[in-house]
Amino acid sequence: VIRLRAMERDGVLRFPVIAVNDSDTKHLFDNRYGTGQSTVDGIIRATNVLLAGKVVVVAGYGWCGRGLAMRAHGFGARVIVTEVDPVKAIEAAMDGFAVMPMREAAPLGDVFVTLTGDTKVITPDHVKAMKDGAILANSGHFDVEIDLPGLRAMATEVFEARPSVQGYRLRDGKTVFLLAEGRLVNLAAAEGHPAAVMDMSFANQALAAEHLVTHSKEMIAKVYRLPEDLDREIARLKLATMGLAIDTLTEEQASYLASWREGT
Amino acid sequence: VIRLRAMERDGVLRFPVIAVNDSDTKHLFDNRYGTGQSTVDGIIRATNVLLAGKVVVVAGYGWCGRGLAMRAHGFGARVIVTEVDPVKAIEAAMDGFAVMPMREAAPLGDVFVTLTGDTKVITPDHVKAMKDGAILANSGHFDVEIDLPGLRAMATEVFEARPSVQGYRLRDGKTVFLLAEGRLVNLAAAEGHPAAVMDMSFANQALAAEHLVTHSKEMIAKVYRLPEDLDREIARLKLATMGLAIDTLTEEQASYLASWREGT
Amino acid sequence: VIRLRAMERDGVLRFPVIAVNDSDTKHLFDNRYGTGQSTVDGIIRATNVLLAGKVVVVAGYGWCGRGLAMRAHGFGARVIVTEVDPVKAIEAAMDGFAVMPMREAAPLGDVFVTLTGDTKVITPDHVKAMKDGAILANSGHFDVEIDLPGLRAMATEVFEARPSVQGYRLRDGKTVFLLAEGRLVNLAAAEGHPAAVMDMSFANQALAAEHLVTHSKEMIAKVYRLPEDLDREIARLKLATMGLAIDTLTEEQASYLASWREGT
Amino acid sequence: VIRLRAMERDGVLRFPVIAVNDSDTKHLFDNRYGTGQSTVDGIIRATNVLLAGKVVVVAGYGWCGRGLAMRAHGFGARVIVTEVDPVKAIEAAMDGFAVMPMREAAPLGDVFVTLTGDTKVITPDHVKAMKDGAILANSGHFDVEIDLPGLRAMATEVFEARPSVQGYRLRDGKTVFLLAEGRLVNLAAAEGHPAAVMDMSFANQALAAEHLVTHSKEMIAKVYRLPEDLDREIARLKLATMGLAIDTLTEEQASYLASWREGT
Repeated sequence: VIRLRAMERDGVLRFPVIAVNDSDTKHLFDNRYGTGQSTVDGIIRATNVLLAGKVVVVAGYGWCGRGLAMRAHGFGARVIVTEVDPVKAIEAAMDGFAVMPMREAAPLGDVFVTLTGDTKVITPDHVKAMKDGAILANSGHFDVEIDLPGLRAMATEVFEARPSVQGYRLRDGKTVFLLAEGRLVNLAAAEGHPAAVMDMSFANQALAAEHLVTHSKEMIAKVYRLPEDLDREIARLKLATMGLAIDTLTEEQASYLASWREGT
Repeated sequence: VIRLRAMERDGVLRFPVIAVNDSDTKHLFDNRYGTGQSTVDGIIRATNVLLAGKVVVVAGYGWCGRGLAMRAHGFGARVIVTEVDPVKAIEAAMDGFAVMPMREAAPLGDVFVTLTGDTKVITPDHVKAMKDGAILANSGHFDVEIDLPGLRAMATEVFEARPSVQGYRLRDGKTVFLLAEGRLVNLAAAEGHPAAVMDMSFANQALAAEHLVTHSKEMIAKVYRLPEDLDREIARLKLATMGLAIDTLTEEQASYLASWREGT
Repeated sequence: VIRLRAMERDGVLRFPVIAVNDSDTKHLFDNRYGTGQSTVDGIIRATNVLLAGKVVVVAGYGWCGRGLAMRAHGFGARVIVTEVDPVKAIEAAMDGFAVMPMREAAPLGDVFVTLTGDTKVITPDHVKAMKDGAILANSGHFDVEIDLPGLRAMATEVFEARPSVQGYRLRDGKTVFLLAEGRLVNLAAAEGHPAAVMDMSFANQALAAEHLVTHSKEMIAKVYRLPEDLDREIARLKLATMGLAIDTLTEEQASYLASWREGT
Repeated sequence: VIRLRAMERDGVLRFPVIAVNDSDTKHLFDNRYGTGQSTVDGIIRATNVLLAGKVVVVAGYGWCGRGLAMRAHGFGARVIVTEVDPVKAIEAAMDGFAVMPMREAAPLGDVFVTLTGDTKVITPDHVKAMKDGAILANSGHFDVEIDLPGLRAMATEVFEARPSVQGYRLRDGKTVFLLAEGRLVNLAAAEGHPAAVMDMSFANQALAAEHLVTHSKEMIAKVYRLPEDLDREIARLKLATMGLAIDTLTEEQASYLASWREGT
């Protein structure tokens, strides 16, 4: 999506696109609750590490990163967050997590997970500073978040420690473990997102496709988000399948909210 | 702010307004972390109730509501969330809170707090269903969130139980306790927000005022948000005062993020 | 161990036994942190269920049960605890969990896990009251905690839904899912406890065996616990391997603690 | 109680004593849930500090210390635990808290609270290493946990910053703040324990007094704990007042637990 927006900016996007990742029912749930659980799941299946008492370094405090921070903490890990955005960094701090640059986190972490959508978030310099036995994983986007060519260049030996776990024996005698060859650890080492979050994501894709077909006349070559009423409709259906009921605004409440005339 | 937007919509707003509540450094922090702590603080100072093991009903899962839910849970309470927005309701459920309509929550709660910005969120019908000894408070906006005239009409006696705590003896023999006469409990019964969140809010107001003066020519009678670069500058200053450092994008990383050409 | 104590009471125990499960370094860690993580892990591997927003019913709030309650909550589930011990029940309530008898929890739960060491904790009557799709697992002791003969008698069909997951089609049309045939779900569907907790357990067994050999003369046919200094020695070694240092009492502090003469 | 045990050991205890602090319904609740909430309450009332994003150093991970750690964390603080007991130190680590000696924690903390029952837990050397503005409080026992004479000797000026808050201007230009003159901060700056935990403590004292009178003949000059059946009776009554019901062992379950004959 970051790339489609760049294409729109450069004027090279040639058809309308609905960025379903912008839907509340997609990014709030799939990215946060789905990625949070499935990333922890992937790490534990690959390594059988006990997270309680471990230091987990979470690179990036977007929806995916905060999902992982929440779940790693929920399994008893101490979480360090690295960020480039000062607003997200304060949020992480006020959510109770340690915040510091990666170069300071490197010697403290037991497990490192990148969820930034960016490149070279973990570099050979960081790896040099890590503890023997450190575990590296990516749950963000492509396998460029950890600098793999850099890592390979540091290693005297690469060996299969367990399925989905490669040991990198480094020149200084330490070994670090790379999960799923730096690809998405929740897809490679676990089953990806549970059905309970994917249903909303698929609903988004289906309704987006239908919307593109039925409104093709009015739409131009632009990145849209799914109309808000469809987004909420998905939420309403999901609530029902969860067996949850909520309140409805009375007319008096709706008009109170809408009006500036009362109350002041 | 809800009211100013209504005025803009009605064409009766006569000057530019910067809605500082829209700034990330305002609504993310002041409303969530400030209201969360100060509301719990206000309730405990007023009542000295032990929250551990109690059921706290949080009406509204906006930033204030989720701040309170987080802190009440952090003090050992079980939290029930009531909402009218299905997206927020699913979020509350996936954050681990019970979600239900107020009429179902009424007989279960020990403490009820409204944070909706709306009116008559707690009605006489709800109060009738409550347990003897239930505690009612508002930490949202005006003293209309709990229907006070309705509550008074139900009572055979109103007495001062403790400072900031009024007992309402009801016709059916039960007593419920209203904190701070339905006004903001964190201001009335505690000291309001700690300085550590208010500094960002005041910075928003100061920079907004300056921006209005220096850009008055270009601005029309509209509700603006503070320019994003000022918002981030406040965050950057705040981080520094917290003694926290963060990472900076390298040129390679910034251009990777900006470009759609690499990586696919 | 419960059984060995019963044998001691009945006078039929014929040799000294060291109940390593009584060691702090065993029951506090292995049972709580090990079982907590590995039970959640086993349930997710077997079912790929998203725990966020689900209701997990934990039968038994001993060390295993509170480990699971803590980790299920840490994954976003709402936890209901069932207990027979009033002290543990209040603890569960003050730790923020719902507490109720199993017959009230039955219609509310999405996932049920028994960790009691007892028999028939989940009966056909409970299963009758459950939701369609409920998941049943045991992480306590033997496969008697869920009444399996009773469950089989209720079913019109038993089918393999996924590996380690049996679907029981019930006469009323609902299906419930039994994990690992009612055996320990963390051993059957995951890898059991992580090495990081088992090391302390194995150290307990090794030191207990050595202690039995070297002190066989003084010991009678009784259930002992590992001498406390060995227990603490294991903890000290574990701390060192975790890279953690702690404080040491100064002479002044040790004598202050030991003496009643000062301070009052 | 530590002192009464020392007296018993020294043979100078002259009458039977029931250490009600040993009752489960006392130490598990009053010390943990009561102290946890009231200590945070005392600190916030005295200082109005925002705990979110702050580092709180908790000296001692007994019941009081873990109560405070739990609640400070619940308010968004990062918690560092200092301990002298290796078992408690591992527990703290696996509960997700940082563990280190006080001399390492000193430069990191924003708020320091002692809950050890010991003396000179915070010394002038520690204070020298602290940040400007650090807050010191005691919630353990006597006002000897922080070395007050040592602190005074370091100060060029002592001033009343707010009620219950003394500023100590140090020779190096920094100021640290001492709450409640080093006495119990939850009693001095707040209202002490909420009634909801004190009721169980008072019940313990009342039943202990009655037990001493009715069983005076059989009891010798020793430190007893309250008989377990009375302890559980208190728990049962408390549960009822909380409106909570629990399960009861069936005869089959009770005999299964008691017997070693079945199940293996």
